[in-house]
Amino acid sequence: MSKLASADSGVPTLAVSTVIFTLRPNQAGAMQLAIALVRRIKKPYLGLWALPGGPLSMNEDLATAASRNLLETTGLHPRYLEQLYAFGNLDRSPNDLAEDRVVSIVYWALVGSEEAAEAVEGENVQWFWADQLDPLAFDHSLIVEYALWRLRNKLEYSRLAHGFLGERFTLAQLREVYEAVLGRALDPGNFRRMVQGNGAVVATSERLEGTRHRPPKLYRYDSSIDLTDQGPLNTGERK
Amino acid sequence: MSKLASADSGVPTLAVSTVIFTLRPNQAGAMQLAIALVRRIKKPYLGLWALPGGPLSMNEDLATAASRNLLETTGLHPRYLEQLYAFGNLDRSPNDLAEDRVVSIVYWALVGSEEAAEAVEGENVQWFWADQLDPLAFDHSLIVEYALWRLRNKLEYSRLAHGFLGERFTLAQLREVYEAVLGRALDPGNFRRMVQGNGAVVATSERLEGTRHRPPKLYRYDSSIDLTDQGPLNTGERK
Repeated sequence: MSKLASADSGVPTLAVSTVIFTLRPNQAGAMQLAIALVRRIKKPYLGLWALPGGPLSMNEDLATAASRNLLETTGLHPRYLEQLYAFGNLDRSPNDLAEDRVVSIVYWALVGSEEAAEAVEGENVQWFWADQLDPLAFDHSLIVEYALWRLRNKLEYSRLAHGFLGERFTLAQLREVYEAVLGRALDPGNFRRMVQGNGAVVATSERLEGTRHRPPKLYRYDSSIDLTDQGPLNTGERK
Repeated sequence: MSKLASADSGVPTLAVSTVIFTLRPNQAGAMQLAIALVRRIKKPYLGLWALPGGPLSMNEDLATAASRNLLETTGLHPRYLEQLYAFGNLDRSPNDLAEDRVVSIVYWALVGSEEAAEAVEGENVQWFWADQLDPLAFDHSLIVEYALWRLRNKLEYSRLAHGFLGERFTLAQLREVYEAVLGRALDPGNFRRMVQGNGAVVATSERLEGTRHRPPKLYRYDSSIDLTDQGPLNTGERK
């Protein structure tokens, strides 16, 4: 199996990184999709922003390492966590010294908006709007682009929006999540019919507390439906 | 980032493995989904069957390593190759010595039926029916189960069946691929309407050569439709 190996005796380093999504209010008060990034404090790409991550340690599961990235970066726990992809192209680092090769197994995570408001921020850890990113270190721009694509695709056929919301929500709040993730306005009437038609969201007997004359009804996700379907891995990974 | 690291100085080994699918005729002459496996010739799991794979070498891309697995195991090149998942649970090997931990980045591949008939076979490399496997080494039974799930899901919304067929095929041949992968008979009339309705398959002016009075029409896939969509990775991975 090793006949293609080069003369050097090195092996690729294995790292785990995490794309952390949340919704945060923008200056106009509308929810907008944001990503947590860390600033590089060493070469290569010194000073650029990058996905949080680090080497996989010997006694950690992959998902545990991804959760730890999230906790160490933001002080938060994920509402949803899924493996995205393993990135291992030879040219993903500008430094072509063979001993620097890193293969990154990347996860993506959703953090609730309320928790995200409490998140750690600092000079070297910040939230950025997902659709307004400058070029990131390494191949991280491509990784974020792929994570966004996966998030937008999954939103349409799963109850993934739950990862940003509380247990109870109005249809307007749910629509706001869809609008923030998809990056476009949705017609309220069409959205209501879509949601009520697919059956994943059920009305509760409660209404939003407030001062309005006719407060909107609160909904919840049908818990008998999986947050998102990974088939055999749904049980296999939790053994 | 290393505060959870154990006292030992080891790092997990990175391996690449490949689930190789093809269609082969069974004793009744019908096409059936098969997987190429290799026999373990060392411990652990000595004598059991496993997915082909090996350590990632320093100068190989992940997909290149997966193709090499396929070539070394069967002598064949893939018609289709896609990353499946990275498996890295701490308990995936029975040997709980920390220095034996392996993280496997797994690909799945489709090999054309005609090529598969020429494939290398031997005492330690054989094709098995995908739905009649005995327990495999390590967590490879779970990996195969997940690969089957992915294949069956993707078949329904992509032109993946192409990976088993030639450039031109009859609707009966296409239906045979679907039946083999899904493991159940399909109504010919409904299948024809489904295929003609989704627009991915277009009729050619040719007909199957043979002795029949009215030979069936040959179809081809519309090449403007991606074999299967991975969004930004479609270009990103080929850079």
